[in-house]
Amino acid sequence: MVHEQVLDRTFSALSDVTRRGILTRLGEGPATVGELAGPAGMTLTGMKKHIAVLEEAGLVVTEKVGRSRQCRLGTERLDDVMAWISFYQRLWERRLDGLDAYFTLQKGREK
Amino acid sequence: MVHEQVLDRTFSALSDVTRRGILTRLGEGPATVGELAGPAGMTLTGMKKHIAVLEEAGLVVTEKVGRSRQCRLGTERLDDVMAWISFYQRLWERRLDGLDAYFTLQKGREK
Repeated sequence: MVHEQVLDRTFSALSDVTRRGILTRLGEGPATVGELAGPAGMTLTGMKKHIAVLEEAGLVVTEKVGRSRQCRLGTERLDDVMAWISFYQRLWERRLDGLDAYFTLQKGREK
Repeated sequence: MVHEQVLDRTFSALSDVTRRGILTRLGEGPATVGELAGPAGMTLTGMKKHIAVLEEAGLVVTEKVGRSRQCRLGTERLDDVMAWISFYQRLWERRLDGLDAYFTLQKGREK
């Protein structure tokens, strides 16, 4: 999968409070779809849709165990997302440095 | 705005390669909507929609200058997003530590 598509899917998967909650819950250990749906006040069908989005992004893996589906954290460590955000923050700070330099220059001229 | 809504909007704004490209471009300095649309091979209308999403997330600010609309990076530094991802990575690593401990225990038993 192309790098930009990975970023698209991952950012999109993280853009929902319920899905971030599922990841936080699975950080404590595996859970079935039913165990995730209950506390979130959701139907099984609604929960399955959220899990499918997380699964496509590699953030969750699921496995059929008896009559239920077990979910656990996937292999996606969010390194690409972290790298993109760090890159953006450097851009953002450089822009501020540029503005600082501009205002210092203007101040000098006004004297 | 509630913290979780900020995260929803920011992650959602970042989930599109064109919008990430706009931010990268604006990191080099301000640009009009037309200057952003051209190189991206987009119509003005299409570009305006992307910019509206970025503006709602605080990632871009726009200002009417003469007959065109000037865009520049907003005040959103992505600190909340960065904090969430760091939190997730800690969860993820703790889970791995747990698995490590489990396998070491199993190995010990097999001996």
